[in-house]
Amino acid sequence: MYKHKDLLGLKGLAAEELIFLLDTARPMKEVISRPIKKVPTLRGRTVMNLFYENSTRTRGSFELAAKYLSADCVNISSSSSSVAKGESLYDTARTIQAQGADVIVLRHPMAGAPHMLAKAVKAAVINAGDGAHEHPTQALLDLFTVREQRGKIAGLTVTIIGDILHSRVARSNIWGFTTLGAEVRVCGPPTLMPVELTQTGARVFYRIEEALEGADVVMMLRIQAERQQQGLFPGLREYSRLYGLNRERLSLAKPDVLVMHPGPVNRGVELGHDTADGPESVIEEQVTNGVAVRMALLYLLTGGGAHNEADY
Amino acid sequence: MYKHKDLLGLKGLAAEELIFLLDTARPMKEVISRPIKKVPTLRGRTVMNLFYENSTRTRGSFELAAKYLSADCVNISSSSSSVAKGESLYDTARTIQAQGADVIVLRHPMAGAPHMLAKAVKAAVINAGDGAHEHPTQALLDLFTVREQRGKIAGLTVTIIGDILHSRVARSNIWGFTTLGAEVRVCGPPTLMPVELTQTGARVFYRIEEALEGADVVMMLRIQAERQQQGLFPGLREYSRLYGLNRERLSLAKPDVLVMHPGPVNRGVELGHDTADGPESVIEEQVTNGVAVRMALLYLLTGGGAHNEADY
Amino acid sequence: MYKHKDLLGLKGLAAEELIFLLDTARPMKEVISRPIKKVPTLRGRTVMNLFYENSTRTRGSFELAAKYLSADCVNISSSSSSVAKGESLYDTARTIQAQGADVIVLRHPMAGAPHMLAKAVKAAVINAGDGAHEHPTQALLDLFTVREQRGKIAGLTVTIIGDILHSRVARSNIWGFTTLGAEVRVCGPPTLMPVELTQTGARVFYRIEEALEGADVVMMLRIQAERQQQGLFPGLREYSRLYGLNRERLSLAKPDVLVMHPGPVNRGVELGHDTADGPESVIEEQVTNGVAVRMALLYLLTGGGAHNEADY
Repeated sequence: MYKHKDLLGLKGLAAEELIFLLDTARPMKEVISRPIKKVPTLRGRTVMNLFYENSTRTRGSFELAAKYLSADCVNISSSSSSVAKGESLYDTARTIQAQGADVIVLRHPMAGAPHMLAKAVKAAVINAGDGAHEHPTQALLDLFTVREQRGKIAGLTVTIIGDILHSRVARSNIWGFTTLGAEVRVCGPPTLMPVELTQTGARVFYRIEEALEGADVVMMLRIQAERQQQGLFPGLREYSRLYGLNRERLSLAKPDVLVMHPGPVNRGVELGHDTADGPESVIEEQVTNGVAVRMALLYLLTGGGAHNEADY
Repeated sequence: MYKHKDLLGLKGLAAEELIFLLDTARPMKEVISRPIKKVPTLRGRTVMNLFYENSTRTRGSFELAAKYLSADCVNISSSSSSVAKGESLYDTARTIQAQGADVIVLRHPMAGAPHMLAKAVKAAVINAGDGAHEHPTQALLDLFTVREQRGKIAGLTVTIIGDILHSRVARSNIWGFTTLGAEVRVCGPPTLMPVELTQTGARVFYRIEEALEGADVVMMLRIQAERQQQGLFPGLREYSRLYGLNRERLSLAKPDVLVMHPGPVNRGVELGHDTADGPESVIEEQVTNGVAVRMALLYLLTGGGAHNEADY
Repeated sequence: MYKHKDLLGLKGLAAEELIFLLDTARPMKEVISRPIKKVPTLRGRTVMNLFYENSTRTRGSFELAAKYLSADCVNISSSSSSVAKGESLYDTARTIQAQGADVIVLRHPMAGAPHMLAKAVKAAVINAGDGAHEHPTQALLDLFTVREQRGKIAGLTVTIIGDILHSRVARSNIWGFTTLGAEVRVCGPPTLMPVELTQTGARVFYRIEEALEGADVVMMLRIQAERQQQGLFPGLREYSRLYGLNRERLSLAKPDVLVMHPGPVNRGVELGHDTADGPESVIEEQVTNGVAVRMALLYLLTGGGAHNEADY
């Protein structure tokens, strides 16, 4: 069961809750694999995408998840919104709710914004990325993908490589995989490694070869060009030389290793063509699973958990 | 009955017409208060939002009103449109109509633009704000809110406070409330008070305390920062000191006074937290009623007035 | 029959294929002429508009075509997309496909981009304009319009006037009309006339009077202001004097000549009010037919060609 009003982060969620979310996503994936990708489950429900940062994939993924479930979906981006007129997040959210939002999907540059929002509204709030804090639906789709591919998560070794410090994807995945019994390794430049990691149980590596040794899953993070300008790492070429994944390095991992990336990939930096499109890559599966996981969340957070299976 | 092709402004509409529009909005509000906010009434009808100025709430409110009635809705904003290529409003509107628009919702910085448009197309045109001229759906939702809260409009005292000169909200509300028998007071800095008000029947005040005395409704207008740059008023702090609504001033009004604002609120300027979120505030009710009023208009302007009640 | 996965251009399509596409658009036009413009044909199918250039009409036309057929439609524009983050067209398209796109409608400034995309995805790709190369749906709607108005295309004389060099509309129309047996004349400033035209069968004119002589169809192209800045033609006034269509010039064509323009019209440049809105103008019909033609394509490219007529 998942009994919370919102999904704000994976930190603090129990293993049973995560498993329940992943189980609910499974029939959703069946829906989107059919030629007619549409069920009437959420007809008359309203999903509002409130995005204070641009994002094709996450916004589009939620929009399609809503539409595949027959919900109404309205997109609000900061550029065209009252935000430009200086309205507070609180007032924007209350307005959206008063217009009928059942679910508010929020992406915001400030860590904790969805938590604040969740207290202000009765509508369900889904965190679609808050600053460098959490990106729980990304981690859920990663969990779903690994579980679907390997049949389990417990006991696996998951190596996350890149700018751990600024990565909400890494944070959410550390919580999720650790809770479900995987061993999580993180690896990246020392300047991009957060100090608080010791409490999470993740093991820290600075040399990629050591981090890859025997890994079941390699998750490459996206390098964001703006970090370079802040002088936090030496340059894309140097970064790629030290932390990029090539086939030689990949051979250090288990033979059946999965290569993952949240996208969009900087080809030639984190991954080369030979690893991005190699047989180990499940990057496109991740995208499809993202829609399924978000359908499950929209369904559960609008009361679907109490319904019977005939609903979808 | 409402027998016009369009809704361009409240000036000139008869009391019976206004009452009919408000009555039609009532069952629409019932629709959006249900868990399944969807009726098939406007299935196969097309609503096009043509916005030459940004607006989250009004655009979103029309989009949801269309979707709750099962109409198709397409958003066109000036930034992404042929407007950027220099196409005239006339040609844009004719194109939209040729693509199948049944209703065109127009926001435009130029007063009178919707009237010009209405003559050029067979589609119904709804004015969603034209320059400093009219914003009739805002006034209809304000009328609906007061009528719902107080059971009547005739005989009430409605005080509108702020930048009256540039406010299309004020203009439409003056026409609407006056037609339905309320006494309308307007109050604001002398530099922001239009001279033509004498013909409307509204009484002009420059001191907020006098304007609030015994008021049933206090409607605060949004101060637009760009007016400051034009040197039309002294600064937000000074404005707030002279025309902001605090609890002390509010105590001059009737004990059951309603506090209204078209949003988004500049907190700390027009309203403080204690008045924006106080028990007198119906600001969020206004937002919900805006969707209901717009549903009623979409319904009536697509021929719904002639249908029977079974339609919704 | 139309057996291709995609629609990338009209070059190389056989006459039977073009006729089949036009025939399929006919019942679609009936659908959008009804008060209830909606059929369930493509329920559960997903159309993604991927636009790397702004366009109100083409994007809106595809969006409405999808909605009239009950497909889900998601818009992705370059400004709000991962494109801004430097993602390749290949990766964006693979992502869109993994999210469930059945059809990807692509507008791109680079000639050949849709062809590259079509090889990368299983989804159907529709070229909505690629650089100065092709704009096949525009040409199809032009063919549909002429055929509907005149009952045939073979044997007609079609004169295209303007900036032929940079016009994807001209290129696609030359292929389409020539294939269906019309005589195509092109006319414009020598600096804006491509050299490769000789292989297409189109006849080149530099004086508008000669090009108009006895024409059945006059298709005026839009002059794009940015070409002026490149010094390719002398200025709008001079251009209008030499190549603008006025009533005197129009009288050189057949008495029942059709005046066409892909829009948006630069009034006073290519066309005056007397020719843009004259009895010969079918400019608005073109817009309506554009929706019908796009409905037909969405239908056929999602497998509709194999279905029976009961589908719509």
